[in-house]
Amino acid sequence: MKAEILAVGTELLMGQISNTNAQYISSKLPDVGIGVYYHSVVGDNPNRLKESLKTALERCDVVITTGGLGPTQDDLTKETIAGVFGKRLVLHEESLTSIKNFFNKIGRQMTQNNEKQAYMPEDSIILKNNNGTAPGCIIGQGSKVVVMLPGPPSEMKPMFDDYVMPYFKNKSEFLIESKFLRVFGIGESAMETLIIDLIDGQTNPTIATYAKEGEVTLRVSAKVKVGEDSEKILKPVIDEIKKRAGDCLYSDRNQNLDSLVANLLLEKNITIATAESCTGGLVAETLTNFPGISKVFIGGVVTYANEAKEEILGVNKQTLEKFGAVSRETAAEMAEGVRKRLNTNIGISITGIAGPDGGTAEKPVGLVYIGLSSESGTITKELRLSGNRNRIRTVTALHAFDMIRRHILGLKIEIGGQK
Amino acid sequence: MKAEILAVGTELLMGQISNTNAQYISSKLPDVGIGVYYHSVVGDNPNRLKESLKTALERCDVVITTGGLGPTQDDLTKETIAGVFGKRLVLHEESLTSIKNFFNKIGRQMTQNNEKQAYMPEDSIILKNNNGTAPGCIIGQGSKVVVMLPGPPSEMKPMFDDYVMPYFKNKSEFLIESKFLRVFGIGESAMETLIIDLIDGQTNPTIATYAKEGEVTLRVSAKVKVGEDSEKILKPVIDEIKKRAGDCLYSDRNQNLDSLVANLLLEKNITIATAESCTGGLVAETLTNFPGISKVFIGGVVTYANEAKEEILGVNKQTLEKFGAVSRETAAEMAEGVRKRLNTNIGISITGIAGPDGGTAEKPVGLVYIGLSSESGTITKELRLSGNRNRIRTVTALHAFDMIRRHILGLKIEIGGQK
Repeated sequence: MKAEILAVGTELLMGQISNTNAQYISSKLPDVGIGVYYHSVVGDNPNRLKESLKTALERCDVVITTGGLGPTQDDLTKETIAGVFGKRLVLHEESLTSIKNFFNKIGRQMTQNNEKQAYMPEDSIILKNNNGTAPGCIIGQGSKVVVMLPGPPSEMKPMFDDYVMPYFKNKSEFLIESKFLRVFGIGESAMETLIIDLIDGQTNPTIATYAKEGEVTLRVSAKVKVGEDSEKILKPVIDEIKKRAGDCLYSDRNQNLDSLVANLLLEKNITIATAESCTGGLVAETLTNFPGISKVFIGGVVTYANEAKEEILGVNKQTLEKFGAVSRETAAEMAEGVRKRLNTNIGISITGIAGPDGGTAEKPVGLVYIGLSSESGTITKELRLSGNRNRIRTVTALHAFDMIRRHILGLKIEIGGQK
Repeated sequence: MKAEILAVGTELLMGQISNTNAQYISSKLPDVGIGVYYHSVVGDNPNRLKESLKTALERCDVVITTGGLGPTQDDLTKETIAGVFGKRLVLHEESLTSIKNFFNKIGRQMTQNNEKQAYMPEDSIILKNNNGTAPGCIIGQGSKVVVMLPGPPSEMKPMFDDYVMPYFKNKSEFLIESKFLRVFGIGESAMETLIIDLIDGQTNPTIATYAKEGEVTLRVSAKVKVGEDSEKILKPVIDEIKKRAGDCLYSDRNQNLDSLVANLLLEKNITIATAESCTGGLVAETLTNFPGISKVFIGGVVTYANEAKEEILGVNKQTLEKFGAVSRETAAEMAEGVRKRLNTNIGISITGIAGPDGGTAEKPVGLVYIGLSSESGTITKELRLSGNRNRIRTVTALHAFDMIRRHILGLKIEIGGQK
C-alpha cells in the first residue's frame, strides 16, 4: 500500500516549525507494510487542502493528515475532508464528554468553540485523544483510507502508536523491515562503488546509501510476508557489506559513533580524559551528553593558548617552539599530559587549525593532529580536512571517536600524513 | 510570487531525517516578497519527481528543490528537471575543477561518479558549492523559476543565503524587512503580555514573538517597496519594545547571546577561562565556535570528577566535603581557580546536576551554580531549572553567557536562591 502524509498548517509554511510529524509517521509505516511515497504540506486554506487531498487520493491508498483539528476557525481539516467524501459532521457524545473532562482536569473553563472538536465525520472510526482535546478519526471509502490526526506531536504520536498502527497491522499482508549500517572512513561515493553490484543486483532486500557530515549510513530493507522472518533475506547481504566495508563499518544497529564509544568506555570501564584545542571541547561536550558517563569521563581541558598547554598539560615549551602548537609532537604531549594529570586509561588530544584564519602554506586550515595516549603508548594521526570551521570541528571529533573505538577494539589506526 | 519547496530524497520518506531544509527556506523567502504555499517530498524516483515538479509548476511561480544532486545513481534531480524543461546537461568546467580541488584538499581519490556533479542543465545559472561538491543551479522558463539546491543542510544553507536570496531580492517589488530582537530573562508569555497592546495595534510593522529554549525572539517586520526605507516604520516600535524589555533585551540585530559575548570579549580585549562540570564543556565549545576567539579565550577545563576539580582547579577538599560539588562555594573556588591558573581577566565556572540521575531532595536535578570571578571579586548565581538533561545544559550555558554579558556591561546580576 502507498501512503501520503499531508500536513495542514500555515506555521509549517512560515518556517516556524519543522514537519517532524511526517518523519515520525514515515519511520513507522513501513513496519506495517505501507510505503510512504509523498509528504506534502498546505496552509489552513480549504481550497488548497481540498486540491491536495484529491491529488493524494489519486496517487495513494492511504492518506494521513496531521493538524487542523483544533477549536479555532483556522482548523478545517475535518470539515474539508468530510466534504470531499460527502459526509456530514455529527456530534460524538463520548468525545464531547472527554473534552469536558479534560478541561475539568486542568482546571480551566471550556470555551464554546471547543465543542467543534467533538463533531466527527459520520461513519468514521473515532480515535481518542488521551493527551489533548481534538480526537482523530479514520474514514474509509472503497479502497482508500484517510486518517486524520492532531498537529501537536505530543498528541499525534501516542494516538498514532496506540490506534493507527494496530489498525493497519490488522489489515497488512506484507511488512518492510530495515537495518541501518553505519560506516566511518569511507566516503559515500567510494562506499557505493564498493557495493555497486549488490545495489544493482538486488530487489529484495534493497540497499541505499546516504551521507551525513563525515560519515555514511547504509539502509538494507527486506519486504516480508507477515510472520515471515526477514533475517534470512537481510543477513547474507549485510554480511557481504560488512566484509567489504571491513572495520570501517562500526554499527549494524544504527548507533552513532559517539554513543558507541560512550557505551564501549562504560562497558569496559575504561577511563578517559580529553585535551582539545581547535575543537574547543566538542569531544568532551559530546561525551558528557550521555547520562552516567561521569563513571569513566574524568575531565577534559580546552587549551587554546600555548600557555594553557604548558600550564595545564605540561607540554614542553621547546616542543611548542620547535614543532608548533599544531604538530604531531604537541598532540602527543597533550594526550600524555592530560592522561597523566587526570590519571586515566586513555588521554585523547586534538590540535589543529579550524580556520577561517590561522592557516599558512605549510600548515593550512584543516590540518589537524589527534593524539591518543594509553598504557600501550601514544599514537598520533594527521588529518587534512576541508570545509568551514564548523565542519572541520565536527569531522575532527568523529575522527577522535573513531580512534578511541579502534584503540579499544584493537583495530588498525591509520596515522595519516604523506611523508 | 508563490513558491513550493520540493524535497527529493527517499531518506525523508523513510523518516530517517526531518525536512529542516523546507523550514529554513520557508522562514527566509517572505523577506524577498515570496510566499510559500506548499512543501512536498518525493523519493529518488524520476517519474514521481517529474509528476511532482509539473504539479508544483502549475500551482506556483517558484519551485525550490533540495536534494538529489549528489554523485550516486540515486541522485537524479538535475537529470529529471532538465528533461522536463527540454534541456541537455552539459559539462561545467569550473564546477569540475572545484570538485577536483575539493578531493585534492581532503586528500582522497576522486571517483569517476563525482564527475556527474559537474554536468549542469544548459542555460542555467550555476550556484557554487563552497561547502561540498554538488553545485546548485537556477533554471528560468517564461515566468517560472526552478532553483535546485543540494540536500545536506551544511551545503544548502550557505548556498541559499549567498546566491538564492540575492537573486530573488533583485527581482522583487516588495520586500519584507525584519528586525529580530533577542531577549533573555523574560519568558515568552510574559514578554507577549508586556507588549500585547503593540502586537494587537499594529499592521505595519507586525510583531511576532517566538520562544527558543530558554530565550525569546521578537520579529518586527515592515513591508516596504523596494528602495523605500524600512527604518522609519521599524524604529518607533522597536524603541518602545526596548523600553519595556529593559536590559533583558540584549540584541536588536538577531545576535546570539554567545556571539554577543564573544564580540564583547574581543572588542574589550578581556581574557576568559572556563571551568565546567555539568555542562561538560558546552560554554567553551560554544565560545570556540568563533574564529579569532583564541585572542581572549585562553582555555577551559571540564572537571567531572571531584579529583579533577582539586587537581586542575585547586578546589579545596574541605569545600567539596563540607558543601558538596554542587554548591555556591565550589562554584566560587572553581571560577577563582581557573582564573588564577590561566591568568585571565574572567574565570567562569558551572557546577550542577543535569540529570536524569544524581538528584536528591535537597539538591534536585536542575540545581546549578554559576561562578564568575574577576578583578572585582567573585559572584555566584543559583539556578533551579526544569526539563531534561539537554535542556538543563543548554539553558545553563545561556545563563553563563548572560552573566558574562552583564558583568562586562556593568548591569545588575541576580544571584538567585531564596534564602
